[in-house]
Amino acid sequence: MPDRAEEPFVQVIADRIESKNPIIMGGFPGMGLIGNIVAQYLIDQLDMKPCGRVDSKLFPPIAILYEGLVKGPVRIYESAEKNLVIIFSDIPIDPIISREVGGGIVRWAKELQPREMVSLAGLATTGEEHKVFGAATSQEGLEKIKGHIELFQMGTITGVPGVIMNECLNHGLTGICILGETRGPNPDPRASIEVVKAMNRLYGFDLDIKPMEEQAEEIERMLHQLSEQIGEAEAKPSKDLTMYG
Amino acid sequence: MPDRAEEPFVQVIADRIESKNPIIMGGFPGMGLIGNIVAQYLIDQLDMKPCGRVDSKLFPPIAILYEGLVKGPVRIYESAEKNLVIIFSDIPIDPIISREVGGGIVRWAKELQPREMVSLAGLATTGEEHKVFGAATSQEGLEKIKGHIELFQMGTITGVPGVIMNECLNHGLTGICILGETRGPNPDPRASIEVVKAMNRLYGFDLDIKPMEEQAEEIERMLHQLSEQIGEAEAKPSKDLTMYG
Amino acid sequence: MPDRAEEPFVQVIADRIESKNPIIMGGFPGMGLIGNIVAQYLIDQLDMKPCGRVDSKLFPPIAILYEGLVKGPVRIYESAEKNLVIIFSDIPIDPIISREVGGGIVRWAKELQPREMVSLAGLATTGEEHKVFGAATSQEGLEKIKGHIELFQMGTITGVPGVIMNECLNHGLTGICILGETRGPNPDPRASIEVVKAMNRLYGFDLDIKPMEEQAEEIERMLHQLSEQIGEAEAKPSKDLTMYG
Amino acid sequence: MPDRAEEPFVQVIADRIESKNPIIMGGFPGMGLIGNIVAQYLIDQLDMKPCGRVDSKLFPPIAILYEGLVKGPVRIYESAEKNLVIIFSDIPIDPIISREVGGGIVRWAKELQPREMVSLAGLATTGEEHKVFGAATSQEGLEKIKGHIELFQMGTITGVPGVIMNECLNHGLTGICILGETRGPNPDPRASIEVVKAMNRLYGFDLDIKPMEEQAEEIERMLHQLSEQIGEAEAKPSKDLTMYG
Amino acid sequence: MPDRAEEPFVQVIADRIESKNPIIMGGFPGMGLIGNIVAQYLIDQLDMKPCGRVDSKLFPPIAILYEGLVKGPVRIYESAEKNLVIIFSDIPIDPIISREVGGGIVRWAKELQPREMVSLAGLATTGEEHKVFGAATSQEGLEKIKGHIELFQMGTITGVPGVIMNECLNHGLTGICILGETRGPNPDPRASIEVVKAMNRLYGFDLDIKPMEEQAEEIERMLHQLSEQIGEAEAKPSKDLTMYG
Repeated sequence: MPDRAEEPFVQVIADRIESKNPIIMGGFPGMGLIGNIVAQYLIDQLDMKPCGRVDSKLFPPIAILYEGLVKGPVRIYESAEKNLVIIFSDIPIDPIISREVGGGIVRWAKELQPREMVSLAGLATTGEEHKVFGAATSQEGLEKIKGHIELFQMGTITGVPGVIMNECLNHGLTGICILGETRGPNPDPRASIEVVKAMNRLYGFDLDIKPMEEQAEEIERMLHQLSEQIGEAEAKPSKDLTMYG
Repeated sequence: MPDRAEEPFVQVIADRIESKNPIIMGGFPGMGLIGNIVAQYLIDQLDMKPCGRVDSKLFPPIAILYEGLVKGPVRIYESAEKNLVIIFSDIPIDPIISREVGGGIVRWAKELQPREMVSLAGLATTGEEHKVFGAATSQEGLEKIKGHIELFQMGTITGVPGVIMNECLNHGLTGICILGETRGPNPDPRASIEVVKAMNRLYGFDLDIKPMEEQAEEIERMLHQLSEQIGEAEAKPSKDLTMYG
Repeated sequence: MPDRAEEPFVQVIADRIESKNPIIMGGFPGMGLIGNIVAQYLIDQLDMKPCGRVDSKLFPPIAILYEGLVKGPVRIYESAEKNLVIIFSDIPIDPIISREVGGGIVRWAKELQPREMVSLAGLATTGEEHKVFGAATSQEGLEKIKGHIELFQMGTITGVPGVIMNECLNHGLTGICILGETRGPNPDPRASIEVVKAMNRLYGFDLDIKPMEEQAEEIERMLHQLSEQIGEAEAKPSKDLTMYG
Repeated sequence: MPDRAEEPFVQVIADRIESKNPIIMGGFPGMGLIGNIVAQYLIDQLDMKPCGRVDSKLFPPIAILYEGLVKGPVRIYESAEKNLVIIFSDIPIDPIISREVGGGIVRWAKELQPREMVSLAGLATTGEEHKVFGAATSQEGLEKIKGHIELFQMGTITGVPGVIMNECLNHGLTGICILGETRGPNPDPRASIEVVKAMNRLYGFDLDIKPMEEQAEEIERMLHQLSEQIGEAEAKPSKDLTMYG
Repeated sequence: MPDRAEEPFVQVIADRIESKNPIIMGGFPGMGLIGNIVAQYLIDQLDMKPCGRVDSKLFPPIAILYEGLVKGPVRIYESAEKNLVIIFSDIPIDPIISREVGGGIVRWAKELQPREMVSLAGLATTGEEHKVFGAATSQEGLEKIKGHIELFQMGTITGVPGVIMNECLNHGLTGICILGETRGPNPDPRASIEVVKAMNRLYGFDLDIKPMEEQAEEIERMLHQLSEQIGEAEAKPSKDLTMYG
C-alpha cells in the first residue's frame, strides 16, 4: 500500500483532452468572484463537458455536493468544438498553497501544448467603472489583447492567477490575464458582464450576455430591498438589541 | 532498526477479509455521534467479528480499554455472511489528519473491490425532524438511494466521510454517504434510529430497532430528570455561587 | 560525515542483553511519579546493572548529572539473574513525541523476544484508596494479572505507557500495564508501595518494602511540617504581601 | 508529471552568460533601498540586457507587471562589454528564506568563476553623513576597496548580502559588500549617489551622476511640500478627528 | 545545481588539523559569557591559528565583521604546539538547534580521535563565590578533574555544552565540562578568571592572568560609574519622563 506522504501535492485527474493546442482558462474565486462567474458562464453557454478534476492533499477535507452528487472542488471542462479547456474552482485557494496549485496546473497544461493560458480574475479599485484590463507574459501575448482591453500598466497579480503567469514565464508558455475592475471581494455581476464582452471580442465566442444582465438586475433588486430593510431596522432598533446598549 | 519516520502515516492492520466485493461502511464520531451509534449497533446486532485495526502515527498517544483489554482506537469488523465490513472509530479524527485517514482507508478498501463504500454521518440542521439524507459519487449510487432516503441537494460533507467520498471519486469507487439529520454534536439516538431504519430499507438488514428505541427512551428520561434538577438548581442558586454575583 | 537529519528519531544504544525472553519493564514519569519510583526501587533492590540508553533528537538538549557523572536521561538496566530489563526515564516525555519514543522502545524490545512488556504507571482518581489496576493487550495477559490486581475496566492509558500498549498490540507482543491509584502528579510513595507489593505477587520478586515504607513516613513527616508552617504563615501574612491586598 | 515538492527551493533560470570571470553584483531591497536604487541605475546607464531570473517556491505568489508584461520578481541582467552581471530584486526577501536565496545565487555564480561578488546594501546609522563603507571576505578583497571607501570595522551584515558574504567565504570566492550610510528603511537617493560615486572609483564605470542628483532634488522638493502640508494639517486638525480626541 | 535542501544541517569546514589526539574545547555564549571569554583568552594568549568554521543553515542570516573582514560566526582555532583545538562561537545557539550543532561538532571531533572534549560554560547560582565546577562522561574523566575543581554533584547542563556531553557519552568519547559559578547572563570577568586558573591547574597552560584581572577591574570601574550615574538620574528624574507619571 503506497503511503499518502508520497502522493504529489497537486494531482490533475483528467480524461484525454481532445482539443489540439487548446486555449486553457482558469476561473478561481477572487476579487468580485469574477473568475468563477465568468468561467461558469462560459461552461454553461458553451455547453462544455466535465472531463477531470484537480485534487490536492492541501485542499480542505470537504466534499461538495450538487443534487446529491459529489463533485471535486476544482473541476476541468472541455469544449472540443471551441478548442477550449476551463479549470473551475469552487473553493478559494489559500495563498500558502496557491503556488503549488498554480504550478501543478501549468505543468499539466504544458503537456497539452496550449495556444495560450488565460487567467480570469478581478482587479480591486476604488473607481465606479468596470474596465477590463489585461496583462501577458510575452510581447506576442500583449499584441493579442492590445486594442481590445486596457493594458494593466503596473502592479501585481496575486494568488493562483499570479502564479500561473509566473509559471508560464518559467515554462515558456504564453500566459494572459484578463482582470475585471471591481470594488472588493463581493460577487460583481456587472464587472463579470464586461469580462464576458471582452471574451467575445478577444476569442469570438459570440456569447449572448442577456441572461447575465437579467441576473445582474435581479441581484441588484434584491440587494436594494435588503439595504432598505436594513435602513429601516437601523432607524428602529429592536428592543432586544437595545437591552445590551 | 527501521526508523519510525519511515512508517506510513496511516496503516491498516487486518486479517484476510473473507467477503467478496463487500459493502464497506465507516462509522466515525461526528454530528449527533450518529456514525458511531449506528455502526456500533450494526456490529452488535449482526454479530460482526473484529478483524483488524487502522493505526496512524498521527493519532493521539492513548490506549483504549474495554474490560481490561487494550483495543485500537479505530477497529475493523466483518460479517462474511452479510458481505459487510465496518470501520469503527472511538476517537474523533482531527480535521488536519482526516485526509490522511480517509485516504488510507480508501486505498486499503480498493484492494477488496468493494461493491460500495458507505459513510455513516450526521447532518446538523436547526429543524425538529430526523430525516435521513443521502449523497453519492455516481449516478449509479444515486439511483440506489433514491426513493429510500432524501437526496442531499446542495452543501458540503466534512471530515473523514467527506474525504472518503472525494477519494472514492478519485479511485472510481461507488461512494455513498448516509446522513442523519440532527441538531448538533450531542449523541442523538432518535436520529440514529432513523438511519438504522434507512439501512434496513437500503440493505435489507432487517434489524430490530426495539432495543435502540428503549435505549433512546431511557436516555431521554435521564436527560429530562437532569434538566428538572438543573431547573430547580437555577431557581435556588447556592449561596457560594451568589457570593460571586 | 553523515547528516544529523538522517539520524533516527529514537535510538536505543545498548550492550548485548543476556536475559532470554526477558520481562521488559518501563518506568516513565507520570501520575504520582509511580513509574519512576517503582522502577528505581526495583533497580536498586535487585541490584540491576546499567546496560544502555534510549536517546532521541527529540529530547530536550540537557545532560543529567549524578555525582559529577553525565547519565543519559533514559537508561536501560538489566538483571540477568531475574531475566529482567528495565527502561527508566528521568525526564517526562512530551506527548508529541511519546509515540516515537514508545514505538522505538517496542521495536527494540521485539528483537529480544520478551515474555511480556510491562508498563508501570499511575492512575489519577479522586478516591483515598491506593488500589492497583491492570490492563493487558491479550486474554493471555489478562489471565496473568487476574486475581492479583484489579482489572482496569474502561478508560484510556495516555503517554508512553499507552503507546507501548498499542504498539504491543500492533507487533503481537504481550503488553501489560500496572497502574497505581493516586491523586495527581505529585510523587506518591504510598501508591508506589502498593505497586511494589503487586510486583511481588505477580512476579515473585520477594522485595522488602520496609525501606520504602520508612521513606514514605519520612516524606509524610516533612510534608506535615511544611503544611503546618504554611498554615501559620497564612494565619499571619507578612506585611509585604498585605501591602498588595 | 514531476511533483512540485521535488523542485529546488531556489532556481536560477538564465541564458548563457557571455562574460568571462564577470563581476557579479546583487541589488536587493534593504536599508535606504540603496541596493535597488544603485543596481537599477547601473542597469539603465550601462544598458544591461535581461538574461534570466531567480525563482523560488518560497517567494510570495505574486506576478509583477511593467507596462502589461509579467516580469519575474528577481531578475538577472548582463553587460558583456563591462563583464558585469547584476541580480536585481523587486521584492524584499524574508529573513527566513534569505539563506536559501543567497546560497542559491552563490552556487549559481560559482559556475561563472566570478572575479568577485559584490553586494550593494545600506547601513543604518544615526548620523547625517552619507559615507560609503566596505567589507570583504579576504585580505585581497580588502586591499581592493581600501583607500576608495571606509572599512566597515566591526558589526554585522544581515539579509541576502550577509548570506552572500558568508557563502563566498564557504566557497572560496572573493565577496565584497558596499554599504551606503543611511538613516532607515526609506528610499535614500543621496546615499545612493555616494554609492554610485564609489562604484565609479572602484570599477571605473565613469557613470554620470547628474540624472540621479536631479531625481534626488525632485524627491526632496516633493517631500518638503508634503511635510509642509502635513504641518498645516496638524496645526488645524479636522473636526472629524477631534471628535475622537 | 544541487539543492540547498540537501545541505546538511551543520557543516564543519576546516583545514587539516595537525594536532594528534588533541584536546578539543568549545566556548559558546552562555551564563556569564564564560565560555566565550575564556575561549577567546586562550586563543589570544596561546596565539592559536584560525583553521576553520562551523556553519549551519539553521544559523541566523548574518555575516560578522572584524576590521572589514567577514568571519564565520562559529570559528575553529588550533595550537599544534599545545595539541589544542578550540571551537569559538560569536552567536548564542538557539536551544532548538543546539542538538544539531553539538551533534555536528562531536561527529567531526570524533574523526580527530581527541584525548578529551572540554566544554567551557557558566553555572548560574545565587551565591557570591566564583567556584569552578566540573563534570565528566566517564570515571576516567572524573579522576582527571578531581582535586583541581569541585565536582558538579547533581543537576543539569543545558545548551550546546549539555549536548556535547551527551554525544560524547553516545560516541564513547571522554567529555568534560568546566563550569564557572556566576550570577546570570551578564559577562562575568571574575568568574572567567577563576576558570582560566582552573585551566592552568588542569592542563598546565601556565597562562598569565594579569591582563584579565586588569580588564576585570576596568569593567568594574565602568559599571560602578554607570550605576552612580543611574543612581543620580533616578534621584532627579527628567521632566520629560515625569510628564507621563
